[in-house]
Amino acid sequence: MTDPAISSDAPLPRRDEDDRTTINELKAVVARFVDERNWHEFHNPKNLVMSLAIETAELMEHFQWRTPDESLVIMDDPEQAHAVGEEVADCLAYLLAIASKLDIDLSTTLRAKMVRNAVKYPVPPKSEPTEP
Amino acid sequence: MTDPAISSDAPLPRRDEDDRTTINELKAVVARFVDERNWHEFHNPKNLVMSLAIETAELMEHFQWRTPDESLVIMDDPEQAHAVGEEVADCLAYLLAIASKLDIDLSTTLRAKMVRNAVKYPVPPKSEPTEP
Amino acid sequence: MTDPAISSDAPLPRRDEDDRTTINELKAVVARFVDERNWHEFHNPKNLVMSLAIETAELMEHFQWRTPDESLVIMDDPEQAHAVGEEVADCLAYLLAIASKLDIDLSTTLRAKMVRNAVKYPVPPKSEPTEP
Amino acid sequence: MTDPAISSDAPLPRRDEDDRTTINELKAVVARFVDERNWHEFHNPKNLVMSLAIETAELMEHFQWRTPDESLVIMDDPEQAHAVGEEVADCLAYLLAIASKLDIDLSTTLRAKMVRNAVKYPVPPKSEPTEP
Repeated sequence: MTDPAISSDAPLPRRDEDDRTTINELKAVVARFVDERNWHEFHNPKNLVMSLAIETAELMEHFQWRTPDESLVIMDDPEQAHAVGEEVADCLAYLLAIASKLDIDLSTTLRAKMVRNAVKYPVPPKSEPTEP
Repeated sequence: MTDPAISSDAPLPRRDEDDRTTINELKAVVARFVDERNWHEFHNPKNLVMSLAIETAELMEHFQWRTPDESLVIMDDPEQAHAVGEEVADCLAYLLAIASKLDIDLSTTLRAKMVRNAVKYPVPPKSEPTEP
Repeated sequence: MTDPAISSDAPLPRRDEDDRTTINELKAVVARFVDERNWHEFHNPKNLVMSLAIETAELMEHFQWRTPDESLVIMDDPEQAHAVGEEVADCLAYLLAIASKLDIDLSTTLRAKMVRNAVKYPVPPKSEPTEP
Repeated sequence: MTDPAISSDAPLPRRDEDDRTTINELKAVVARFVDERNWHEFHNPKNLVMSLAIETAELMEHFQWRTPDESLVIMDDPEQAHAVGEEVADCLAYLLAIASKLDIDLSTTLRAKMVRNAVKYPVPPKSEPTEP
């Protein structure tokens, strides 16, 4: 049986890609882009973290004047949804570039950090949310 | 000769996890953490993008007074390497939380963005690096 | 009738200092601090703008989990008020250091920018607030 | 005797304005701009600190791909100098808006912070610069 996503002419089901894409596959997408353009001279970690901060601010710009409630429905506006997606992608691209450059295994690092976070913020005994 | 990482009882080699971990698996790690603590009240997109910006700044702090060249060898110092890894993990955790909250498929969105970036920054004909 | 702030022996009322302090006086406070510590090697503009971003994020941290309404009353808590004041001062110190290093006259530049902003955002004819 | 800056046709001496302009005068420039546009609804402290972070990132953008040495001469390029000045002015405008909204006397707060910083970073006995 063939994968319908490959065999058919239908567009790829958008929602499923994160379910089948590994971190390294996305790291490779970004690394190839940088390689092809010969940008390694500029892509030192200091510059890359500045870039991540800049892209994060561009993402924030979409939420700057919205209330928290309004921020919850931002994706209802297709134009906003597209723009927000673009900024999230830019943030991810730089974060993956940083991880590749610093040789950080994100899966291991994230899981280890969440274990430490769980010690710092224990699960409350079924009650009020504690401030994060 | 067999790969010792596979044949022995030694812990999995750290570098391989990103090769077998999907985006959704990491999204799930973060989502479960937030669920267990009942933090959804605080985790609206407006607050989450602020949080990403704050964690990014904490990452930047490690590069603030280093030269670009010094930033290239930051991971040679084990203490710095650990601290930088923690901040990268925090950034990734918030970025995954944002994507989950906004229902963004990161793999699709990143690839689509890189296609648009490739149009914006065409591969140069084997020459000097162009400024990114 | 004389100004009691001048005529009495009482300590100067805190609220009045911004009324009698020039930009250059504050620039000088920061410049002397940097000079005395011989930090000019580190204080290139690239590092200073990173520093401003880091301090701004530390200021944001106090507002991260507050609602906009809660942010309006943050100064009612004396401990919070002190901490927020410290971060605002750090932001201002770096902004003044940047202006000194780049030889920017802030008063001229700010006024000129506000004139351009006024063209971009004309005063509405007594009606609803327009989004900034 | 009349002020030559007023009576003559010569442009105002740019460098001197910070020497004669008080913090409150600049606070008033920003406050009037916000008042006239009736933006107080949007200008809660949470939104304003996000705005400061966004403007700071726009300032950082000009230094993103420059080396520290290149950042030292950024003002030699008139176009860059103008653009950098605009971003610095935007940062200052939001910082003044934050201070006004939170009723912070910047002169008092900055001086008090620098005194605490001086305790934290004592002047070294005429030697190597210590890292800030």
